[in-house]
Parts: sequence; C-alpha cells; structure tokens
Amino acid sequence: MDRKVRMGIVGGGYGAFIGAVHRIACRLDGYIELVCGAFDVDPNKSKEFGKEVFLPSDRVYGTYKEMIEAEAKLPEGERMDFVSIVTPNHVHHPVAMAALSNGFHVACEKPMTVNVQEAKELQQKVRETGLLFLLTHTYTGYPMVQHARKMVQEGQLGKIRRIVVEYPQGWMAQRTEDTGCQQASWRVDPTQAGGSFTMGDIGTHAANLAETISGLKITEMCADLHTYVSGRKLDDDGNILLKFEDGATGLLWASGIAVGEENGLNIRIYGEKGGLTWRQEEPNTLIAAWLDKPKQILRTGIDEADDTRVPPGHPEGYLEAFANLYVHFAKAIADVKAGKSASPQTHGFPSVDEGVRGMAFIEGAVESSKKQSWIKFPV
Amino acid sequence: MDRKVRMGIVGGGYGAFIGAVHRIACRLDGYIELVCGAFDVDPNKSKEFGKEVFLPSDRVYGTYKEMIEAEAKLPEGERMDFVSIVTPNHVHHPVAMAALSNGFHVACEKPMTVNVQEAKELQQKVRETGLLFLLTHTYTGYPMVQHARKMVQEGQLGKIRRIVVEYPQGWMAQRTEDTGCQQASWRVDPTQAGGSFTMGDIGTHAANLAETISGLKITEMCADLHTYVSGRKLDDDGNILLKFEDGATGLLWASGIAVGEENGLNIRIYGEKGGLTWRQEEPNTLIAAWLDKPKQILRTGIDEADDTRVPPGHPEGYLEAFANLYVHFAKAIADVKAGKSASPQTHGFPSVDEGVRGMAFIEGAVESSKKQSWIKFPV
Amino acid sequence: MDRKVRMGIVGGGYGAFIGAVHRIACRLDGYIELVCGAFDVDPNKSKEFGKEVFLPSDRVYGTYKEMIEAEAKLPEGERMDFVSIVTPNHVHHPVAMAALSNGFHVACEKPMTVNVQEAKELQQKVRETGLLFLLTHTYTGYPMVQHARKMVQEGQLGKIRRIVVEYPQGWMAQRTEDTGCQQASWRVDPTQAGGSFTMGDIGTHAANLAETISGLKITEMCADLHTYVSGRKLDDDGNILLKFEDGATGLLWASGIAVGEENGLNIRIYGEKGGLTWRQEEPNTLIAAWLDKPKQILRTGIDEADDTRVPPGHPEGYLEAFANLYVHFAKAIADVKAGKSASPQTHGFPSVDEGVRGMAFIEGAVESSKKQSWIKFPV
Amino acid sequence: MDRKVRMGIVGGGYGAFIGAVHRIACRLDGYIELVCGAFDVDPNKSKEFGKEVFLPSDRVYGTYKEMIEAEAKLPEGERMDFVSIVTPNHVHHPVAMAALSNGFHVACEKPMTVNVQEAKELQQKVRETGLLFLLTHTYTGYPMVQHARKMVQEGQLGKIRRIVVEYPQGWMAQRTEDTGCQQASWRVDPTQAGGSFTMGDIGTHAANLAETISGLKITEMCADLHTYVSGRKLDDDGNILLKFEDGATGLLWASGIAVGEENGLNIRIYGEKGGLTWRQEEPNTLIAAWLDKPKQILRTGIDEADDTRVPPGHPEGYLEAFANLYVHFAKAIADVKAGKSASPQTHGFPSVDEGVRGMAFIEGAVESSKKQSWIKFPV
Repeated sequence: MDRKVRMGIVGGGYGAFIGAVHRIACRLDGYIELVCGAFDVDPNKSKEFGKEVFLPSDRVYGTYKEMIEAEAKLPEGERMDFVSIVTPNHVHHPVAMAALSNGFHVACEKPMTVNVQEAKELQQKVRETGLLFLLTHTYTGYPMVQHARKMVQEGQLGKIRRIVVEYPQGWMAQRTEDTGCQQASWRVDPTQAGGSFTMGDIGTHAANLAETISGLKITEMCADLHTYVSGRKLDDDGNILLKFEDGATGLLWASGIAVGEENGLNIRIYGEKGGLTWRQEEPNTLIAAWLDKPKQILRTGIDEADDTRVPPGHPEGYLEAFANLYVHFAKAIADVKAGKSASPQTHGFPSVDEGVRGMAFIEGAVESSKKQSWIKFPV
Repeated sequence: MDRKVRMGIVGGGYGAFIGAVHRIACRLDGYIELVCGAFDVDPNKSKEFGKEVFLPSDRVYGTYKEMIEAEAKLPEGERMDFVSIVTPNHVHHPVAMAALSNGFHVACEKPMTVNVQEAKELQQKVRETGLLFLLTHTYTGYPMVQHARKMVQEGQLGKIRRIVVEYPQGWMAQRTEDTGCQQASWRVDPTQAGGSFTMGDIGTHAANLAETISGLKITEMCADLHTYVSGRKLDDDGNILLKFEDGATGLLWASGIAVGEENGLNIRIYGEKGGLTWRQEEPNTLIAAWLDKPKQILRTGIDEADDTRVPPGHPEGYLEAFANLYVHFAKAIADVKAGKSASPQTHGFPSVDEGVRGMAFIEGAVESSKKQSWIKFPV
Repeated sequence: MDRKVRMGIVGGGYGAFIGAVHRIACRLDGYIELVCGAFDVDPNKSKEFGKEVFLPSDRVYGTYKEMIEAEAKLPEGERMDFVSIVTPNHVHHPVAMAALSNGFHVACEKPMTVNVQEAKELQQKVRETGLLFLLTHTYTGYPMVQHARKMVQEGQLGKIRRIVVEYPQGWMAQRTEDTGCQQASWRVDPTQAGGSFTMGDIGTHAANLAETISGLKITEMCADLHTYVSGRKLDDDGNILLKFEDGATGLLWASGIAVGEENGLNIRIYGEKGGLTWRQEEPNTLIAAWLDKPKQILRTGIDEADDTRVPPGHPEGYLEAFANLYVHFAKAIADVKAGKSASPQTHGFPSVDEGVRGMAFIEGAVESSKKQSWIKFPV
Repeated sequence: MDRKVRMGIVGGGYGAFIGAVHRIACRLDGYIELVCGAFDVDPNKSKEFGKEVFLPSDRVYGTYKEMIEAEAKLPEGERMDFVSIVTPNHVHHPVAMAALSNGFHVACEKPMTVNVQEAKELQQKVRETGLLFLLTHTYTGYPMVQHARKMVQEGQLGKIRRIVVEYPQGWMAQRTEDTGCQQASWRVDPTQAGGSFTMGDIGTHAANLAETISGLKITEMCADLHTYVSGRKLDDDGNILLKFEDGATGLLWASGIAVGEENGLNIRIYGEKGGLTWRQEEPNTLIAAWLDKPKQILRTGIDEADDTRVPPGHPEGYLEAFANLYVHFAKAIADVKAGKSASPQTHGFPSVDEGVRGMAFIEGAVESSKKQSWIKFPV
C-alpha cells in the first residue's frame, strides 16, 4: 500500500518565509514527500532553488502551469498527489483552479483569494471536483485550540456570551517595505494582497480562530481601519466590533504597528459558566476559569494529548501546529487513495468554506470601515 | 503648624465596601484623621457604626446635612477640613454641593454624578468656590501608572497611535443582586447608578486611565452595550471603538460577566517608537517595548520611586494607590490652610474636570449603543 | 470598653526603613494607636522625629529605658500597651527584656536576638511573665501563606516530601554599605547583625516560612555560605541542604548578590498528592498542582478571604501582610485587657518560640558552613 | 556533491519515546535521511517497525551488529554515515564502540554510558578514530541557551558567582513503573539505567546546562539523594550543593516526584554585573537582569536568530532544539565527507567529553550522597 503522500509546491523560493514553513511542516511527521515544485516566477531561480531542497532537476518547473501539466502525465505513485500554494495572495486562485481542474488536491495559504468572488468560484470548483482542499489556518492546528473547541462543543462553558480576539504585530511599525524585505512589500501592495493588509494577513486568522473555537458565526461587524505609516495604500491597523450568532458579541483587533508585539494572536472567550484564555506565543497552556471553582491551567500533553509528539513540558510550537494540519490532510488524501471517503469535517482541517468566510470578513471590514457603520456579515 | 487634615465621611456604613477602603487609605500614611461621619441613611445605624470606627458620639451624625451644618459651626482646627462622599452615585451631587457651599473641600467617589448636567453644575460650583475636589479614580494612584504617563509626556513612545484598555470583571455573571449583596443591587438599579452599570462602575475608570496616561482626549465613540443576565435593567457588558485627539484610535471594553476575571483593568498603549503594558492586578510591573531594543520590565521602587513606601519587591497594592491620591489631596489642603496655592495639577490628583468627562463618557456610551452608530464625544 | 491598643516604638527614626513599615502596619486597620517612642540613640534626633509622627513632645523619649520607666507610671488607658522594637538586631534583647520586666507586651523584629543564648533568655522571660510576644515574620501574614499552611494541615498534599525555599535579593551585589546606606552598613557589621548577613536578615524568614507552611521542623542542615563582595566580614550568599521531620528533605538559599532580584522570597512544597508554589512578589496567587487533575490558580479573596480588606483582584501586599500580624497581636492584647486568655496559637502570630528556632537556624548555618559538613539542627 | 547525510538507528522501536524524537529531529530540516535501523531486541519487531518508518526491508536489521556489518559493506553514497543510539543506557557503550570501530560516526543519547569507566573507553575510542560523536544534550540546542552562553563568554555578566539549576518532574510521584509504562520501568532498573535514576536521566542534563552556559566546571559536590516511592532501587529525588571553578557556587536539584512539574528544567545564573533566567518550558524567552538598568526580555528570533526557522513569536520548541543539534552534527559530517575538518567545537554540538563529565557527575552524586559529605568532582 502506498501511504506516503506526494507534494508539489508553487511559490516559496528565495526570500520567502512561508514556503520553508510548509516544507518543514510536511517533512516533520514523515507522511509527506516533496516531489516537485515551481518555486519562483523566474524559471531560473526556480530551478536553482530546486537544488536547495534536494529535488531532481526534472521535477523542478519554470511555472505552475508547466508543473501541473507535466505532473498530470506522470503515473500514479510517482506524480504529486497535491499542490501546496504558497505564493502572494493574488496567485492563489489561478493556481488552485488549475490544480483542481487537473485532478490534484490543493493546500492553500490564507487569505484564500483576493476577493469573495474568487473565493466562491473556488468553493464551487472544490464541490464540483470532490477534491480535498486545505486552507492553512495554522493556529487551529494547536492542540489547545482544538481542546478549547471541544470544551465549547461539550457545553462546558455554557452559552457563549463574549469573545475577544486579538492579533497584534509590531514589525510594520515603520516602513519595513522600504528595507528590501519582500515579506513586507507584497503585503501592503493592493495588487498582490487584496483590499486590506491587517485583516487579510492576520485579522482573518483571528476571525477564523474565534469562529472555530466558539462554533458561532459572525453576523454583523463595525470596523475602523487605519493607516498609520505614511505612504501606505493599505491599512496597517484595525479595530472591529462583532456580533455573533445566538447573541454573543465580541471584539477583534489586528495591527502591524503594535510596537513590541511579535505574533501575539490570542483569544478570550466567556460563556455563562466558564471562560477560556489562549495565547499563541505560549500555545501549550490554556487557562480555564469557572463560576464556582478555581481557575485551571490546562496543558498540552496532559489535558489534550491529540496531535502531540512528545511528553508534557516538551514544548511543541508553530511548526508542529502547521504539521498537524498537514498530517490530517495527508491522512485524508491517503484515505481517498485507498478508496475511502474523507472530508475536512471527518479528518479535521480548515477548508474552502472557511476561505469564503475569510474573504467575506476582509471585504466586510473594509466596507464597514469606509462607511463608518455597522454592516451585516457579507455572506 | 497644623499639618494633619481632618476628614468627615458621608456613607460607607454597614455592608459597604468602598467606605472602608477610604478610611484605610486615609489612615495609611498618617496625614489624615477621621473626625466625623454620617454613615447611613438610617440615623441609628449611622450612630452605631460610628462606634466601630472609634468616633466620639457627638461627631457621628444622622444625615449629611446635619453633619455639614454642625461641623461648619466648629472652630477651625477642630472641624473637618473635607468631606469624603462614598454613597451610591445618585447621592454624590447633593452632598458635594452642600459641602462646597459650606466651605468644605470634597473627595468624591466616581462616577461623579448620575448625568452630565449634574457634573457640570458641580464643576461650576468648584470653580466658583475655589475649593479642592478629589475624584477617586484610584488606579491613577499607582506609581507605574504615573510612570507610564511621564514616559508618554516625555515623548519616549513617540506619537501615540493605538490604545487598548479593558476592564473585565466576572462577579456579575449571575444574578448576584438576588443574593443579598448590597454592592450588586444598587449598581444595577438605574435610580441609584445612572444609565449604565458597566460604563458607570468600571468603564469610566478605563476611559480615565486611557486619557490620563496618553494625555489624549476621546473625540468619538461607537459603543455596543449588552445585558446578558436576564432581568437586569442596565447593561452588564460593553465594547466601544474609540477615536482620540491627534489621530490615535482605540478600544475599550468593560464587563461584569467575564467569568473568572476579578478586577482585570489593564491597558496597552502603542506609539511610533514604543509600547507600554500595565495590568492592575500586578500593578508594580510596567512592560516597555521598543522599536529597536529589548523589552524592559520596569518596576515600582526601581524605575519609579515616587509614591512608594517600601523597597522594590515588597508589593504595594490597591490600598496604597488609593492612599496616594489622598496624600496628594491632603497635602494640597494643608498647603491651602497654610496660605499657599494648590490645585489638582500642582498636587497631582484627578478632579472635577475628569468627573465631567467621565459622565460624558457614560452618557455617550449609552447613546451610541442605542443608536448603534458612531457619535462625537458629548463634551 | 477600651478596644484600641496603644503602641510605643523603640528605634525606627531617620534613615530607618522598617520603623516606618511598622507604623503604617499599625495604623492601617485602626486598632492600634502610636502613643510614644524612643526613635534614635541620639535623644535630640528622637525628639525631632517624634514631631514627624505627630506625637506630643512629652511622649517622645531620649532612650528606651526612659520610655519604659515613664510609661509604666502612666495610668492604664493612657500608657502604652506594648513596645515595638525596630532597632538593629543587637538591641532587640535588652529592650525586650526591659519591656517584659515592666509588664509591657512586646513586638520585635527578626532575627529576634544575635545568638541562641539571648533568644532562650527571652523565651524564658516570656514564659515567666505570661506577656504576649510578636516576632514579625511578616511573610506569614499573607493570606495565601496561611492558606497553604491550612492545605498542608488538612492533608490535601499528602505526606510532604520536598521543600524548596529561596530568598534572593540583589541589592548587596556591590559595596552598598559604602554608599551611605544605613540599611546596608549595619546588616554586614557583625557587632550589630550577628554571625550572618544573609541567614540573619533573610534566610531566617525563608526557614520560618518553610516550617510554618509544612508544619515540619528542620532536623539537619548542610550549609555553604560565601562572601562574594570583597571586604565584607559577613557572608552575602548561601546555600543549605535541609532534612525535615518525617523524612522530608529540602533546599534553602538566600543571597544579597543575586543581581536583578528584588525581594524574591518564594517556596515550592511537594507532597505525595499535590504541590504548592507561592512567590512573595505576587503574593495573591498560590498555584496548586495535583496528581490527577489540572493545576489550579488559587487567589486571595476567592480561595482565602481571611485577613483581606478588599475584593478579589484588588491587590493587597506587604504592608497589609504586616498589618495582619499586628491585627492578630492587637486583638490578643485587647482580649488580655478584657480578661480573656490569648496566645500566639489562638490568635495566630509568630512568637518567641519561632525566634529561638530562627537563631538556631542562623547559628547552625554558620557552624555547618565552617565545618563544611552536615550538622544536627542546634535546638 | 552529496550533502545529504544518512542515518542508521539502533533502538527506538515500539513503545519507545526518544527514538521517535530523534527521527523527527533528523527529518525536520531535510539534511538527514533515515536509511536503516535495528529498532528492537526482537528481530521480528524490528522488521515490522521498519515498515512504519517507510524503510525498505533489506535495510531493517535484526541486531545492531548485523546492521553495522552489513552497512559497512555498502558503497559510500548508499551506506549510512552515522549511527544514532537510542537504546536504554546500558546498551550505549557496546553499540557506540562497534560503530566507531567500523568507521561510522555516532550520535548517542545521554547518559552516555552506565559508568565513568565505559565513558572513558568511549572517549579514548573517539580520539583514536577521529570520528564525530554527538551526545544529545538536547537542551543546549535551544537558541536562547546558546545566547546565554555567548553573553557569559562575552563577559556581559561579569565574573560568575552563583548558579541555580533545577530539573523537576512529577511523573514518577507514584509507581508509574507498575503501570506498564516501559519509559518508567527501565529508568528505575539499576541494570539498565546505572546508579541513579534522577541524576542519570535528568540531573546530568542540568549539570551539563550549567557548565555549558557558565563555561565553568564543577569542582566539588555535596549530594543528598532519596527514594520516596517505596520499592524503588534507585533514587527518585535529589539535592546537590556545588562548587565551580573560579569560586562560583551553586545548587542543583532534580526530581521525579515533584507533583505538577512536567519537564521543568530551568537555570538562573548570577554574575557581578548581571543575571540570567531561562526556563525550558517557555524556551524562547531569556530574562536578563542588570545592576543598573531595567530587566530585559530577550527573545528567540529578535535577540538570537541563529538556529531559528520562523519569525519571532512563532514558538519553536523541543523538537527544533533537538533538530539544531542534528543539523550541526550533519553539517560536520558533510564537511568531513567533503574533505574539510570538523569538530564539536567548530560546529557546535556536545560530544564525548561532556559524556565523561556527565558520568562523573552521576557517580559523584551517588558517592557523595552515600557518604553524606562533600567530595571532589570525580574527573
């Protein structure tokens, strides 16, 4: 039986950050093998980069189209099983559509596309093809995030009343995009990033985290986005009031200019009977508070052992969370290859529906902020 | 010379919380002497309570009017110098007006009144009489809050961009007002508390903290208040988007239903060059973050020695912060008695102007939430 | 009835630290009134200092002998009830003996004397006179320390196996005694401080904390004391292996040269079924760990309401802990004055027996370190 | 050029913990390929386990001898480059000797052997063969541990005075070895684990961490080891006083019975000018304290970027630290294969000399505890 799953990559060459992360995440648990890639818009750079990652030269392609065509012709058991898309946002949609059209499963970075329209097309395509689609909302791969979600589902917190989710970063507090940092420049370029920097790059993670843990969908929003660093075309900071299903309310803020913040995603969620606090930078701890008993310190490996590799107190972090999503996705692909059914729901990974909501969140934030008023959530 | 300052108290008898706090705060540093009181609306209970605090019976009064009249007739050096008002909110205004009219300085709990109209009358009265007025925004009495304020004033953070201030509590997550808890029942009674529970009781502290540290005034707000516990006439939770002078923006939330939160006032403030984080529950630490050097842990007694009594690492807390305000106020009164000039600005304590802004904040929050839209700050 | 308790002070004048702390601690709760003092070895300075603390000049004395004689002649209801001794260590014994001999209760700073011999004399004197004696091991006045003690007593942790207690400070990492700091100079002068700086000044607090919480007495010790700052006659750092009754073992270390440490007393105690962690610098939190359930965050005001003044989340600190000891002591004195029985055990405060053990701990540490070997605990 | 490095594994089959960790650590960065293994003392289980890790059956061996012989016959470029030994302690020595004798580099779990004698033989063998030897003292692979080491080397802390290193765990507080947990049973079996459980399993990590960061060697020790859980032949808890070169002193404790502790390795180190604190469970933070400026929070990715893979705030943990050691080791092997020189010092990894000191530490601890006295460090 062929349990190893084969990955091709589009993007993630020299100067990229998230491409390397995807490669590590895939290698970590030994289920996924990188077999091909189109790493750069410059075919020469793509070729050269292929050597860095030990690929044979005939599996390193100049363009994603070339890769998809060539791989499709290879025999099963040799050709890639799925494409991982780690390009700037505006390239997600065409690559994903091409991959799906040629029968390949897709793993895609968030935000899924640059607008809701594209997102819905992709959703439609996934439904039509029946292929698997992984949207890498990394932070849902942490064991304590899944534990929080389970606690809410089991009703331990009672009816949810309030959600506060924050995603502060400080690396864009100055004109980082002028320093030759490729990571910075595309993120504040509307043609590559879409309509919002903060909400597209990080706010969408925060919104997804809130919806994932609470199981509640955002229904209304009132946003106030700002550009603090002069000369930027996109926002670099934003605050949003939220209303959720079932009467819950909340706050979301995301910022690139919060000096001193590294990657400070965190969430607090309060129900009738209990409350939870989780911080991404110390991801193995989940604080649970209760109406009538002491606060508890819940810990990876003790209170939640799923998706862990080492005993309690041996910290697992971001790469492991990322790997968890890929393991779930790889197992789904392996099951499909073995003739079994598999889905995001059964195998546990974020997918194209989350992508559509993510794009709607971004568009809604931009619209609400422009109008300076409450709006209904766009989808 | 007569440096001791004499205090009379209105309110704070049996079952009260904040009255005891005022008495401790005044005793702590030995500058203030409690000389008289009208502790309860029931004159018998007032008399009885006077014994508890070691007052001679002829200085324990049945009503505040009686107290103000009688004390006014006593010779200087014997009569009270100021009245401390620790009643439910709706009684602040009449007592303060009577005290000021009879030549007594006033210390008053927040929120200062039950509406802006009353607050402005009091402001006018203070201006006319030239008497001193202390509004006990306790949290500004912490050394590290004052240190943060100085750092902003000195421009260490650069221009301020973003302020996040939170005041979560969880004690009202259930119908605490039905348990015989007097603290709870008056706070959710509109006739005693005014138009908002969360914004009047705690949100006004948060707003004051943000304005005090940043030196920036709120100019616009968009609030969303809620009542989660059924049967309540006032909100028990609320979120507010803020705009400040000079283009800064922010968020404020306050809640009585945030299960597991005790008295979680905290603030984060981000400027062009640095950021600060302070949490009331661990008040002796202030985290400072910088664009280009490591984060610093600033500490009471090391980085800020003003208004401290013991060496670093000997924690001073809420009562000491409270006492700091009273010490500043008492020194101002002593200076006035010695024929010198004194004011909230020169001696460092919150006063009637902060009270007017506080009432405007509360009314604005209620109005904005009702309209579900942005409004200009009411004053 | 006369419930107020009257205090006289010996020591604690200009330049002193702990004298001011005792005065604040006594004022805090309103049960104790400072009525007289002999504040300085220089009678003029003593007189002058008396004015600072609002004492009438006829109750400010030139020497402790003068004070004890004069006060003894005053009528009950006017004369002091107890003497608080806040001088350097070598003066504790003579003052305490004189006070007890004249019928006054005594509150005394630790270490109780400068050697075990003196300590035993004092113990004998207390037993003979039947008077009350408070040894101000401040840290046992924290509510969460008392809570920890109760948890151990109730068997919640099971049989105690291991105790780790630390008291790091960093203020003596350089020659602080050369900077004119009176606090530093007497502490490293053998004629005033006794045989050890670290073990006398702070190690004895740590040993007392360990014995108080665990309820177990130290039986053997192996110490290694050091002097790191050149020119000092006493140690400024030390490590000690401990054995306790019932087979428990432990570690104690104390240091004046631990750069960056403020007043870092902390304890961890592990039993068969649970473990506890408490840190003096964040004294309102006690972490409890269990064999088979999540760690708990226990909090002042929620899990332990005794000896608190304000609701949970309003931090009480060092001065309040100090005041707690004085309140217990004052209540004991008031009971004695009212003809009731009272003792350290019934009213909850450290006394002369703890003082004898403290002196034995210090002498044992010095002896064991000199011998570089294990010794039996000296008493 | 052949930059990939090939690994063979001895041990780490079903039920093992550390074998899986080694495999993940080697995969993480893509430089090392698992090519063969002898996973279990039962050849059938070894074969079966080989399938789990996707090895071809002809590269899965029944015994380590078989593996070493067979691999030695394979051509370069195909045969393994090094053997990773992840068996119980008593098997380390024979496998390592065999591997080295046949020209293979060796990676070996700690403790290196079961006694000093074996350790010295291995040291001699490594010197004779000139082959590379990695001892997996994982915790030195954390970026902030290396940063701390550099800070000490650069003299930022001044002369080191005091070192406190702790390694508390709680998983052996009960008879875990009776629950079928293979991890527990061999660790308390003297024939497999050597003379000490706590000092062999975890104390040796702590001692290595102290020596690595401080650059100072332990010269004397006074240990007190205990067995708290009845029926155990080896200690499960221990305290040690330490003296280091150059007059530094310290404390080390390690425990398997510290209820509530997971994997709590931590170190505090104090010099004349500064102090450092590092905790393994939050490994991306290093607190630096200074005589005359505020404490600093140093962070992985900001203050130390070496050996990191993702931006600041994306936590890297235990597996990444492990991988760092393997990357350094693999680069050294690749350099040797490319005809360059390479050593533990030039490439940065712990080796056989640390192994000898580790074994001496364990033997010294046992001897000192038996004698209940100070001893010289055995090597």
